[in-house]
Amino acid sequence: MSEPEKEITIYDIAKKLNISAATVSRGLKDHPGVNKNTKKKITDAAHEMGYRSNAFASNLRKKSSNIIGVIVPRLNSSFMSDVIAGMEQVVNEANYNLIISQSLETVKKEVSNARAMFNNRVDGLLVSLAYDTKDIEHFKPFINRGIPVIFFDRIFEHAEYPTIFIDNYKAAYEVTTHLIEQGCKKIVHLTGNQLRNVYAERFKGYKQALADHQLAFDEDLVLINSLSSADGADAAKQILNMHVRPDAVFAANDSCAIGCMLEMKKQGIKIPADIAFAGFNNDPMCCVIEPNLTTVNYKGYEMGGVAARVLIGNLTNQLNTKTTHSIILRSELIIRESSVRNKR
Amino acid sequence: MSEPEKEITIYDIAKKLNISAATVSRGLKDHPGVNKNTKKKITDAAHEMGYRSNAFASNLRKKSSNIIGVIVPRLNSSFMSDVIAGMEQVVNEANYNLIISQSLETVKKEVSNARAMFNNRVDGLLVSLAYDTKDIEHFKPFINRGIPVIFFDRIFEHAEYPTIFIDNYKAAYEVTTHLIEQGCKKIVHLTGNQLRNVYAERFKGYKQALADHQLAFDEDLVLINSLSSADGADAAKQILNMHVRPDAVFAANDSCAIGCMLEMKKQGIKIPADIAFAGFNNDPMCCVIEPNLTTVNYKGYEMGGVAARVLIGNLTNQLNTKTTHSIILRSELIIRESSVRNKR
Repeated sequence: MSEPEKEITIYDIAKKLNISAATVSRGLKDHPGVNKNTKKKITDAAHEMGYRSNAFASNLRKKSSNIIGVIVPRLNSSFMSDVIAGMEQVVNEANYNLIISQSLETVKKEVSNARAMFNNRVDGLLVSLAYDTKDIEHFKPFINRGIPVIFFDRIFEHAEYPTIFIDNYKAAYEVTTHLIEQGCKKIVHLTGNQLRNVYAERFKGYKQALADHQLAFDEDLVLINSLSSADGADAAKQILNMHVRPDAVFAANDSCAIGCMLEMKKQGIKIPADIAFAGFNNDPMCCVIEPNLTTVNYKGYEMGGVAARVLIGNLTNQLNTKTTHSIILRSELIIRESSVRNKR
Repeated sequence: MSEPEKEITIYDIAKKLNISAATVSRGLKDHPGVNKNTKKKITDAAHEMGYRSNAFASNLRKKSSNIIGVIVPRLNSSFMSDVIAGMEQVVNEANYNLIISQSLETVKKEVSNARAMFNNRVDGLLVSLAYDTKDIEHFKPFINRGIPVIFFDRIFEHAEYPTIFIDNYKAAYEVTTHLIEQGCKKIVHLTGNQLRNVYAERFKGYKQALADHQLAFDEDLVLINSLSSADGADAAKQILNMHVRPDAVFAANDSCAIGCMLEMKKQGIKIPADIAFAGFNNDPMCCVIEPNLTTVNYKGYEMGGVAARVLIGNLTNQLNTKTTHSIILRSELIIRESSVRNKR
């Protein structure tokens, strides 16, 4: 590999244009005292010569990196890619950059990602928790140094950490009520680790809707798994072996609902006539499975944007994380053929 | 916001443990001259006190950031999330971190992402090109400074940039040959911008397979679009309006194939009896659509790992990008019900 060129400085640009380094510096900062033509000459020369704003040295001086860390369970959902696009939009406008990493749903990798982010001196952290995270000790070093950490979607309730999420309780209440209104009386709930707010709240909403419609809660109808498509297929087998067959399945995510539907269909079960289905997330797959899946639409782009705005507001002292503690976003029930049994 | 604590230094750790700062420094670097117990005391104290290895200052000294930039079209595919997981595995082991950004398929955002990466002084860049990128001038500043840029999947042929990709020509040749062997004679090809190697090569493979089986190439059977699911639905309408109805569709990605299948099914077309289908990528959706979609399996995790390994080998001078120019990975045809017409 050839030796890299010497780093270009404002002095090199000044020399080339035969103006003062102070003028170059002001021109690069778009200072009003520098005339337009000169500004253009300066920025053109800077670009042409490969000048890099001395971000590193200035970061060191002001103890800020202009980097925001993001830790998510996985990147492979259209929801999460929308969240990240929403974050990028906001942070780029504010001249920050994102470092993104995946915990791959394990607390072990989440801890090591947090450590790397800390050592990289991120200015703030946006986190959606892994499946099995039990405590948030690994984020304590950030709080100790005054680096804000914001939880979104999969949150942890704690006074020091602002949170952005949807009303999972209400959304699940609406899904369950819809199934009851379609005449379903024995509704299975497929859910995930109850450590995670998103699953615990959906479970509560399901339970409350049953109670409000005088339907008995039956613990045997609640199946807890990792909510993968394969888990859905396993659940289908369990459901078909139940003594009295359930008439609906409400899964806490779409992948699991779809895995379950595919297996049921293989066994000759008619959806929604024999068993109605509802999921959660509004993944594009909901419109591929037949019948199309009833679900809850979640605005990922908006959630990412709001989380980033709270963080940046905090970094620029426009927002105080102590006063802006929780932001709850809207979601909406989308009814499709998988659950419609009462055709009026 | 409360004032952040003073940054912890090795001197603070030394004072607390009543040992020399030099010992602390050696202990933190796992120097063989420091005894095990002392090392443990040092790392425990460092962790407890919130010490951050002085990455920033040392980056400035050695002119390296230990950050690798990644620019991808979009994160929302299971292929891309596998690619990134493969990269993370390799870079984390080598003590690097990833900064990831999405071009959202536009050259405009790709250019601005590249600029941000350059200013953030990444040590290297891994890029899969946007849909409409026509030249790679925006990566020139990296090359000029000796910062390696490696293209993966959607590459650009240029002596200065190593590339990692699959044999798209061969894969498409195999798909087309399989359709021909199923008795298909009039095969539509849905493809994307021919600026992108992945689409241009698949098109070539399709054409060559027709030629090798004495089937005439018909330009009207090649439909170029953005390969979204909606584009697939539009293509279905065009196909059904063709004077003589085609008997197969080979789409250059699965989303487009599936969008096309859904629309065909709505119009009462039988798949594969009336029209056989094949896609590309092996997205999980292939096993949700009915009938399940024949496709090409692409090893994202492996591709990400190899790209990262080439980059890091180059940074650590173990590999020369000038000698390791192209790495071609294997892919495999996966035959499912959407294309099987000859049941033996």
